[in-house]
Amino acid sequence: MTTDQGFTLRHELRAGDEEVVRSIVASTGFFSPAEIDIAVELVQERRSKGDASGYHFVFLDAVGEHGAVTLGYSCYGKIDGTASSYDLYWIAVAQAQRNRGLGKVLLQETEARIAAAGAGARIYVDTSSRASYAPTRAFYARSGYVQAALLADFYAPGDGKVIFCKVVAG
Amino acid sequence: MTTDQGFTLRHELRAGDEEVVRSIVASTGFFSPAEIDIAVELVQERRSKGDASGYHFVFLDAVGEHGAVTLGYSCYGKIDGTASSYDLYWIAVAQAQRNRGLGKVLLQETEARIAAAGAGARIYVDTSSRASYAPTRAFYARSGYVQAALLADFYAPGDGKVIFCKVVAG
Repeated sequence: MTTDQGFTLRHELRAGDEEVVRSIVASTGFFSPAEIDIAVELVQERRSKGDASGYHFVFLDAVGEHGAVTLGYSCYGKIDGTASSYDLYWIAVAQAQRNRGLGKVLLQETEARIAAAGAGARIYVDTSSRASYAPTRAFYARSGYVQAALLADFYAPGDGKVIFCKVVAG
Repeated sequence: MTTDQGFTLRHELRAGDEEVVRSIVASTGFFSPAEIDIAVELVQERRSKGDASGYHFVFLDAVGEHGAVTLGYSCYGKIDGTASSYDLYWIAVAQAQRNRGLGKVLLQETEARIAAAGAGARIYVDTSSRASYAPTRAFYARSGYVQAALLADFYAPGDGKVIFCKVVAG
């Protein structure tokens, strides 16, 4: 699928996506080495187990004369034991490509894929309560996500978990 | 370790614990076949990966003349990406052994193990908002757990997720 801006959205893994994801996530400067490893492991899980991994991806590619370059991606999946609740595990755009609205494109595509799964689908996304995450929280808020919970000191003292939720299919 | 009531608490797996866990969890009548499979998978993960699985267990055994019989168990683990937050994944007592305070013994031992991990340890436990889970919620409330969040309709329409939290080490 090609967006209005000429980007391509794909949902199947390509060779090298492990390093693509590592590079994008690392470029943001937001994540620890352990968190970056986890992001890559989800790609590996998807590659080895397919749909059974429970991890689904959206990649946003810019196709140029030298082939496709991936600018951002999201990773989501159904939460075990729920009727139609989904976790948005990752959404990240390469640092050099920020402020172009690509996160919004990725989020909307992710929501559309989840909404297609059936009525009443709910998307949950966890983020930090720290001040440095204010832009992230604002991104979700203006995308229609509502704060459903704040677990104080969840990640560390002074670093709580904020759980946002959006119902994407009536 | 032997309790005041003559039970033995153990933390290492024994041969056959997969079937012990399946039997205990199934006996409660609270869990779906898929949930029971997940409970067993955590034992398998522990057996194949040890501490690296991230899953830790407490088994409560009654030792009699025919050997040890397991009456209940808990499963817990540190939450990835947190400084000192833990999930209590499972705590279950065989149906025929309920109302003897064994759940409390298991919970206290689990808390002691987690508290030993260091200052500020927090235990999270998820349960359902459904009426049939009122005894479960009351169990946690009288054990010092505080409701930290309610995610409406999380599991299914009308079936929310209640997140309880207890700080076990100052």
